Amino acid sequence: MKSEILATGDEIRSGALVDSNSAFIAEKLEENGIEVVRHTSVGDDISMLVSTLREIGDRVDMAVVTGGLGPTTDDLSAQAAAIAAGVELAFHQAAFENVESFFKKFNRPMTESNRKQAYLPSGSKILYNPVGTAPGFALTLGRCRLFFLPGVPYEMKRMLTDHVIPEMVSLQGDAAMHSRVKTITTFGLPESLAGEKVAGVEAAFPGIKLGLRANFPQIQVKLYGRDKDAALLDRRLTEAGRWTLEQLGRNVISENGERMETVVGRLLLERSATIGLAESCTGGLMASWLTDVAGSSAYFLFSGVTYSNPAKIDVLGVRPETLERYGAVHEETAREMAEGVKRVAGSTYGLSTSGIAGPDGGTDEKPVGTVCVGFAGPHRSFGRRLYFPFGKRLMNKKIFAMAALDILRKELLDAGEW
Amino acid sequence: MKSEILATGDEIRSGALVDSNSAFIAEKLEENGIEVVRHTSVGDDISMLVSTLREIGDRVDMAVVTGGLGPTTDDLSAQAAAIAAGVELAFHQAAFENVESFFKKFNRPMTESNRKQAYLPSGSKILYNPVGTAPGFALTLGRCRLFFLPGVPYEMKRMLTDHVIPEMVSLQGDAAMHSRVKTITTFGLPESLAGEKVAGVEAAFPGIKLGLRANFPQIQVKLYGRDKDAALLDRRLTEAGRWTLEQLGRNVISENGERMETVVGRLLLERSATIGLAESCTGGLMASWLTDVAGSSAYFLFSGVTYSNPAKIDVLGVRPETLERYGAVHEETAREMAEGVKRVAGSTYGLSTSGIAGPDGGTDEKPVGTVCVGFAGPHRSFGRRLYFPFGKRLMNKKIFAMAALDILRKELLDAGEW
Repeated sequence: MKSEILATGDEIRSGALVDSNSAFIAEKLEENGIEVVRHTSVGDDISMLVSTLREIGDRVDMAVVTGGLGPTTDDLSAQAAAIAAGVELAFHQAAFENVESFFKKFNRPMTESNRKQAYLPSGSKILYNPVGTAPGFALTLGRCRLFFLPGVPYEMKRMLTDHVIPEMVSLQGDAAMHSRVKTITTFGLPESLAGEKVAGVEAAFPGIKLGLRANFPQIQVKLYGRDKDAALLDRRLTEAGRWTLEQLGRNVISENGERMETVVGRLLLERSATIGLAESCTGGLMASWLTDVAGSSAYFLFSGVTYSNPAKIDVLGVRPETLERYGAVHEETAREMAEGVKRVAGSTYGLSTSGIAGPDGGTDEKPVGTVCVGFAGPHRSFGRRLYFPFGKRLMNKKIFAMAALDILRKELLDAGEW
Repeated sequence: MKSEILATGDEIRSGALVDSNSAFIAEKLEENGIEVVRHTSVGDDISMLVSTLREIGDRVDMAVVTGGLGPTTDDLSAQAAAIAAGVELAFHQAAFENVESFFKKFNRPMTESNRKQAYLPSGSKILYNPVGTAPGFALTLGRCRLFFLPGVPYEMKRMLTDHVIPEMVSLQGDAAMHSRVKTITTFGLPESLAGEKVAGVEAAFPGIKLGLRANFPQIQVKLYGRDKDAALLDRRLTEAGRWTLEQLGRNVISENGERMETVVGRLLLERSATIGLAESCTGGLMASWLTDVAGSSAYFLFSGVTYSNPAKIDVLGVRPETLERYGAVHEETAREMAEGVKRVAGSTYGLSTSGIAGPDGGTDEKPVGTVCVGFAGPHRSFGRRLYFPFGKRLMNKKIFAMAALDILRKELLDAGEW
């Protein structure tokens, strides 16, 4: 059984928006053994939508369509599906209740245009949207089962998991090919070097396909496998994964897609340790990442985002002489910031950044891309200077923050469990 | 004249890679007055490639195809184009020299598989690649002119600008349509309500098309226009923009795509004012946004990310009695945090957040999604309680941070320029 994905919307057609939904859907479908053969995007144009839906209905067995389910006049998916299937739009009570419940929850008045969202092609099945106003629907067109989902990524993702994947898997039945992907997240190796280290995996483990994906500033090494025999596939992927982890060593952050902040958070928890941050050039990004993790209040106590020198002195207790002698971007200043925040926060560890994210402020001695990371732990403290050649402010902020957290991660690993 | 975009490759088909090339190409084509009606992606499958190329050749006048020009066996674009056009692959000396020059420049040995890259469909025109090994080519299929480019983004972008756009513009000739888009960024209105407020724009300004885009937690209202007469188009879009801005009122953050942090930063600069932040539930996100803006050190002094109560007391000077009496999430606590950070940072304004981002920590009285924002300015200070029903930690962090910055934005607007 083959499937296709259709993304609708003028923003996608005109290039104002990158369609990341289709890649997400394709990955999930393939993981569940459903072959994806084509993605298409068209704009909010009724005749284009109708003809594209008919083509898809003629070509494949299953399809996921995103976008065009909202309340406004350029939301045309239900209308296009009805025309393509030769049926009328009909008021669906369950869809109306879906829309209504959302407004009740928000305690907001429902508008007349939201009522439009309850008009769906006659004979279609409602796909309940628990996180937004737009219910989806499923409809059979020719031999093809079409699933219509909202374009808002988090709504689409939830409904894909809740409704679409289970029905597709059941439609597919015994024809299912299992596929798996193992994602190893690394930091500190450029993509080409990471690629060279693991290039041998395809030869050593037949049936495994290698892919590298830059998720700046992390590099993801992905191992793909496909087989009818799920147990064999799992065994093969486990062995290939073990080999790959060995090649990558301490550059591996996680082997299950977990991000740096989740890994660092767990290492802190396991050691009953707490952290305080002092951020200059990273501007709160390290704190924001760490606090993205639910439950982070168990180990994250405080970050002083000290952009100005007075804040470094008053809040963190950095000595004015140090700032005068070395400047704000220096190993010694960074070390004092880390020690200061450890003291102020009363935390087990202190971590700091001070650097030049750009675009201005660079000098010959300290060009844009220079960062000093300060570390203060129970037994020692140090400052370390690093340089990254990216030249872009937002990239620098990210790689500075990631590099500092990576220093903390390695110190926590070396400290062992307490 | 209509155009399409085709992205090829198993990485895109399977979702391992998000296709950002097609959005880039669509945007450039539309900017140059070339209408894009469809994007398609298919994998490295010769029969699929051939049939897709033939369909495109039957449907439109021009197309850009990316990917499949490399040296490996799964690079099939030249072969597929030759089959679709009914011609042979032929050795192209100019293509060979393109490949060879790249290896010479980098002093690397050229492999036999690279020689394959010089075999292109007979009768095709070489598109020189100055930054990579894969030359592109152009070929006429039926009534359609097809341009084949590498999938590597920076190679594709260079060759699109150098070769494809100029030839497309010249093919299009007098038929060129200019297109424009005006992006109005709003905060504080749900999408449906924003849509209703501006729904009349299409009727009032014929030729203008309306689009709404949720860029959580902001809503973008987009006005699209297309016309042969660029001056007329600009005038019409300006008038439609003025009308739309009036409907949206103070919910408008910017009318040029600028983000909240850029707007707030400029308002502070214009008033020679500075800001200090005290962040609990937003965990550094407000600081990170504000410091994403180059030059923000001119007005951003400090953020105290005070997750723990001791940090709120020690760093910000919140009174222990206040915390005891009202708890951390309360208008009064938020107000004291804002006043405290204004004092500690020595800033003109202080802004604070304290709330419950979830997933845990909610109560009946203060459910997940509750945030208290504190504001302290030169003339007054206050705390305000807000509630958002999203229930997801990362969404709550974002909307809490945006809501707090929006309170600051409105206070700055009311303060006028100094």
